[in-house]
Amino acid sequence: MVACFLCPCPHPYPSSASASPLDLKQEGVAISITIPIPTQRRTTRTRCNLSVPSKTNAITKTEPHPVCTSVKAFAPATVANLGPGFDFLGCAVDGLGDTVSLTVDPHVHPGEISISDISGTGTSTTKLSKNPLWNCAGIAALEVMKMLGIRSVGLSLSLEKGLPLGSGLGSSAASAAAAAVAVNEIFGNKLAVQELVLASLKSEEKVSGYHADNVAPAIMGGFVLIRSYEPLDLIQLMFPAEKELFFVLVTPEFEAPTKKMRAALPAEIGMPHHVWNCSQAGALVASVLQGDLPALGKALSSDKIVEPRRAPLIPGMEGVKRAALDAGAFGCTISGAGPTAVAVIDDERRGMEIGERMIDTFLKEGNLKASANVKRLDRVGARLISSTRT
Amino acid sequence: MVACFLCPCPHPYPSSASASPLDLKQEGVAISITIPIPTQRRTTRTRCNLSVPSKTNAITKTEPHPVCTSVKAFAPATVANLGPGFDFLGCAVDGLGDTVSLTVDPHVHPGEISISDISGTGTSTTKLSKNPLWNCAGIAALEVMKMLGIRSVGLSLSLEKGLPLGSGLGSSAASAAAAAVAVNEIFGNKLAVQELVLASLKSEEKVSGYHADNVAPAIMGGFVLIRSYEPLDLIQLMFPAEKELFFVLVTPEFEAPTKKMRAALPAEIGMPHHVWNCSQAGALVASVLQGDLPALGKALSSDKIVEPRRAPLIPGMEGVKRAALDAGAFGCTISGAGPTAVAVIDDERRGMEIGERMIDTFLKEGNLKASANVKRLDRVGARLISSTRT
Repeated sequence: MVACFLCPCPHPYPSSASASPLDLKQEGVAISITIPIPTQRRTTRTRCNLSVPSKTNAITKTEPHPVCTSVKAFAPATVANLGPGFDFLGCAVDGLGDTVSLTVDPHVHPGEISISDISGTGTSTTKLSKNPLWNCAGIAALEVMKMLGIRSVGLSLSLEKGLPLGSGLGSSAASAAAAAVAVNEIFGNKLAVQELVLASLKSEEKVSGYHADNVAPAIMGGFVLIRSYEPLDLIQLMFPAEKELFFVLVTPEFEAPTKKMRAALPAEIGMPHHVWNCSQAGALVASVLQGDLPALGKALSSDKIVEPRRAPLIPGMEGVKRAALDAGAFGCTISGAGPTAVAVIDDERRGMEIGERMIDTFLKEGNLKASANVKRLDRVGARLISSTRT
Repeated sequence: MVACFLCPCPHPYPSSASASPLDLKQEGVAISITIPIPTQRRTTRTRCNLSVPSKTNAITKTEPHPVCTSVKAFAPATVANLGPGFDFLGCAVDGLGDTVSLTVDPHVHPGEISISDISGTGTSTTKLSKNPLWNCAGIAALEVMKMLGIRSVGLSLSLEKGLPLGSGLGSSAASAAAAAVAVNEIFGNKLAVQELVLASLKSEEKVSGYHADNVAPAIMGGFVLIRSYEPLDLIQLMFPAEKELFFVLVTPEFEAPTKKMRAALPAEIGMPHHVWNCSQAGALVASVLQGDLPALGKALSSDKIVEPRRAPLIPGMEGVKRAALDAGAFGCTISGAGPTAVAVIDDERRGMEIGERMIDTFLKEGNLKASANVKRLDRVGARLISSTRT
């Protein structure tokens, strides 16, 4: 086991995944909530350069009452890694994501969660457990309840999956983020963004490793850089509001298990490649903040360490990248651990044309059917959709 | 020999230094200018996101005439590496640097340079060669003359060193940058910033390796990120004009040869440290662009790869860093390959106090005398000081 790289925490690196999103179904496990309340140190040392005022220390000793009888929250899909931003950078994508509905339910044991329903397109939702301790939304929801000290109210949770599992679009993070925001909203929005990220991280830790590069942008929106975990230090990178940024997301019918994609990574990196990727990471951050889309695309495409190891494991991926660039995309790489390919462009119509070329190439060079989505950068993050006040 | 990391060029990595700044004196070598005019590909593919309009392709086929009989140009000191920005990031420092005076001289063979004088404080200037092929200023000046196609005019060059050699403050780069700018100015400012960087790189290649992290900020000012060399791709990072940034530069009386400091580097880097340093590099770039000085300092101090290997080679350096941070500096690391220690702060008076503490610690823990300078960020770069028109 390799120690975590970002902090002196006990989490292993590169992944502490105890279960993949596809083998979570463990019905019949006794519900025993063991997720501890975060220590004062962890919560008070979190830092986040958001414009949203921090509510750190808002963890209440007196239990808050629900301010709504029900709420519905949405959290967007996310693209993690972004080439040279491997394991510390991610961004949110508008119009794709998961929705969590929560209701105060007197039939649920106080302080607990009951998952009443999991719905969504595709068959993959049947693989998800309704045991809240083995469900991304459930784990995050319970963690927020713990943080708030909820002991007198039980909640019923319904999860609507808008994202396929294991696609590299932050499916588990979207469920966790939507659930965390929903619980926080039903109890009067007491927690700060950082606490919601920490709660969602508990979920990620269980299903895919202690990495915030999906959950942080899923909650905060836009681009987020994870500077450290101990303390949690998140830097929001504002892409200029007046600029357009579209993601062409092409998902082939192919399974790319995170564990296998992690195993493909090199343990050691030569100094030349290290310096190259570091400089591209810096260029990527600069291009986001400066709204320089050609430079962003160039940096996105420039990874010499991770993508060259992973792309050959996804049939057709290398050709798909070439096809995207040939069709005019500013840049292209693997989204998260794949198998989705992500390209960037500044125009929706051109994005759709690029998507078609990428689909054709997945079929031609990888013998894989694929589907494309062209979506804007999500600048908002997880959000309340509706609520019924008490 | 390890191949260069940034491009498919023939330059070795980590350093192609044929001579260190301290062993350049090779009097009596026949002057034979072999520096080729850059190929069309190299010059046309250079890219730089400066506000200064590019003059790429300005390389003239008809020889330009001098527009001045004499010029004087200054180029500032630079801090390269900046912790996790190792080998691709640097910034310029106001009020310290080298000055080059140039005169059209009918006694000098047309198309050539004669170094008439080298002056400056300290004894180190006597180590510099007056042979223009073995002098940083001479090499860069000749390269600019070649780029411009100067065949009919000879120039006399006088170099005033304001920087000590081998201090880690970009002494050779300052000489090269001042000379390149001076030649360009005397012939009517025909070349773009990128060409001047390329000309100065020829000089760096000969004395300390093909790295632009000193010459690019020496010419352009501010912070500059080197994204690639083939083509040359420089990203200027604008630190907000309304914010103050001071560097506390403490130079001990100690020699830290670049070759030795390069040899101390690890050949391979574990994935956790690679990801950590990449994320810190991204955070460093973000903090510069966002003008977030505490975050800049934190990133500056965070290098887990280079500084831990080099600091023990400079007596007292680890204690000096602790002393700077204890005294209130936002961050501290080694400047370039050392031995200068650089700390950052937002107030000049506090900078002087921090400098005193660092000097004390060099003496106490390293048994080294040291001197301190507290200087602002230079936002201008190499500049014309005076000229006499024809």
